[in-house]
Amino acid sequence: MVFVMSRSITDRIVLGGYPHPKPPHSSLLLMSYFSFRVEHEDTTSRARSATFSTPHGDVQTPAFMPVGTLGTVKGVDPGRLRDTGAQMILANTYHLALRPGEQTVAALGGLHEFMQWPGPILTDSGGFQVFSLAENASIDEQGVRFRSHIDGALIELSPERSIAIQEELGSDVAMVFDHVVALPNDRAVIADAMQRSLRWAERCKAAATRNDQALFGIVQGGLDPELRALSAEKLVGLDFRGYAIGGLSVGEPPEQMIATLDVTTPLLPVDRPRYLMGVGRPIDLLEGILRGIDLFDCVMPTRNGRNALAFTAEGPVRLRNEQHARDRRPLEDSCLCPACRHSRGYLRHLFQANEMLGPILVSIHNLTFYQRLMAEARQAIAEDRFAALVARHRG
Amino acid sequence: MVFVMSRSITDRIVLGGYPHPKPPHSSLLLMSYFSFRVEHEDTTSRARSATFSTPHGDVQTPAFMPVGTLGTVKGVDPGRLRDTGAQMILANTYHLALRPGEQTVAALGGLHEFMQWPGPILTDSGGFQVFSLAENASIDEQGVRFRSHIDGALIELSPERSIAIQEELGSDVAMVFDHVVALPNDRAVIADAMQRSLRWAERCKAAATRNDQALFGIVQGGLDPELRALSAEKLVGLDFRGYAIGGLSVGEPPEQMIATLDVTTPLLPVDRPRYLMGVGRPIDLLEGILRGIDLFDCVMPTRNGRNALAFTAEGPVRLRNEQHARDRRPLEDSCLCPACRHSRGYLRHLFQANEMLGPILVSIHNLTFYQRLMAEARQAIAEDRFAALVARHRG
Repeated sequence: MVFVMSRSITDRIVLGGYPHPKPPHSSLLLMSYFSFRVEHEDTTSRARSATFSTPHGDVQTPAFMPVGTLGTVKGVDPGRLRDTGAQMILANTYHLALRPGEQTVAALGGLHEFMQWPGPILTDSGGFQVFSLAENASIDEQGVRFRSHIDGALIELSPERSIAIQEELGSDVAMVFDHVVALPNDRAVIADAMQRSLRWAERCKAAATRNDQALFGIVQGGLDPELRALSAEKLVGLDFRGYAIGGLSVGEPPEQMIATLDVTTPLLPVDRPRYLMGVGRPIDLLEGILRGIDLFDCVMPTRNGRNALAFTAEGPVRLRNEQHARDRRPLEDSCLCPACRHSRGYLRHLFQANEMLGPILVSIHNLTFYQRLMAEARQAIAEDRFAALVARHRG
Repeated sequence: MVFVMSRSITDRIVLGGYPHPKPPHSSLLLMSYFSFRVEHEDTTSRARSATFSTPHGDVQTPAFMPVGTLGTVKGVDPGRLRDTGAQMILANTYHLALRPGEQTVAALGGLHEFMQWPGPILTDSGGFQVFSLAENASIDEQGVRFRSHIDGALIELSPERSIAIQEELGSDVAMVFDHVVALPNDRAVIADAMQRSLRWAERCKAAATRNDQALFGIVQGGLDPELRALSAEKLVGLDFRGYAIGGLSVGEPPEQMIATLDVTTPLLPVDRPRYLMGVGRPIDLLEGILRGIDLFDCVMPTRNGRNALAFTAEGPVRLRNEQHARDRRPLEDSCLCPACRHSRGYLRHLFQANEMLGPILVSIHNLTFYQRLMAEARQAIAEDRFAALVARHRG
């Protein structure tokens, strides 16, 4: 009953166009929109399997979210994307705010209707892109001013503005706007950015008005265990519906990322989803799950797919290599994706001839590979053999 | 029974890799591989509906063949292509001979296996591309020497070589190698090219060895009724399994193309498929069918689709126009294609953001539109109201 009521409010928002009515704040409704139920804790590691329920359906975790930067997972239509096994996807607030603009997305019915993705969607806050893509970014306590990397237009982003944009987009999960710094960096710089991110997280929480959108905090603090612990403790005190670990996979060695997970993850509440942002390689996902991570996103399967690099159980295959020219085998014998109906020789030809179908097919294959890996992880957790699975993949 | 035998020979060729055994010439087998049965002749025009049977299945005509230049209909995987309603597709001998080379296609199992297109495939002869794309083409009675537009390599193409390549590719229908000239041109130049094309057609027929590949002649002669009649008469005397009308849709006004069809089509045998090469706009297809044409190919639906131009029953929609930015309507309300699950606003955004999914979706929509038009034509023929259908489309 409650669920039906929730959906009808969602539908009204979606169908109502821009500006949509904001539902009143209600903790009862809030409870009904989201839940996170841990179903099994692996006895051989800190891995767990769970169901994360959102207004647009359930996500079986551990889960990998394909990246739909501009409201499309590059080259993959929503039907093909669903067929890879994807349950929840990510879209980028920064990119969508620039093109086509959040008000246009809202006018077109919100992000789900816009993309025709019926499942859950998470939007990032724009923080990471502001610091990596924007030109002439200047930052103060209020927020960030920068020039669009598309047309040089002057834009301002702040905790309140990021939340407002994400509410217009209408994602199921919004992220707090954080101050991201490059690594390595001075401890004082990292500490300052972490502290500012905490103040901004509080402002984001105060600014959020949609009950059908969960807000996740983001733990920062670079590779410093004390800063990470402080960040985690303060964020947990703010009581977010989920917690992300940010500022990793930015060029540091994998063992440093793992060491940071080792000290950070245990400080996060067991009854909330944990999301490792922007990670990563297949083995990184497994190492994260081993330490209690539930959600991941990364451009690697699609970006590599566009560049002719295919993931397989036997390791990566670089399809442009001459050796594949007359190879009649598929990328993987047991893979059921559309790419694996073709020979490696054909896929190579598509890339050599600059045919769009090459990036399309190998993106789909790589996404399928990642989703298969997550299904394998969930199965291993259910059977209390996850540590052994990771050991095998470490090879 | 005969069909099963035919398929088993085909399978042996496909599975045997390169070089494949050539089946012995046998008119009994030849009969079994191909047939063309006219099912209904429209009482209001010269339009007819028929079934063209090939070793890879039947084609209900009138039919439109999407163009898979390099062994892929750009941006459309074979499953999505089948879903548009496509029955038979075209691939380009010139392009495939350059990349990846016909021997590589043969080593990968032949064109059907290579593309994973289980249905009928027609290959052109390379004649048109040699004269439109190749650099420094020099022609004599033997054939053409030219430089590859990809890497400048010196290549020779002749009637015998074109047939050999098409046999390696393993298409269901091969085309004779013809001498194409630009229009307008001197009558003597057009007449010479037409006469040379007749001699080359005879050499192609003598060179062809595969019983599971039908060879079609190509009527040439520019816009001159006498040259067209002479070309048709001589080709019919050579007894091809189908006849194409070539050298049209090369920039001449539509009414001149129609006038040429009016004088040429009646000279072609009623019991063989008639193919109007490289045509064209939706109305051109209908005008061709009205005059007895059965098969068409054109890059227009895919090329226009890549350039944000969508075909609809209400006329073309240029998706880059600002007016579509917040338009929540699909391209066509009644269209079931994947593009029409999205709003025009979303499709416009994809093109504005240079996202691959724009060209992919609008190519699929346009191909679906063309196939729907052909289904509509077949239905109108069956109900003896084809002339009225064309009149309505002429608007």
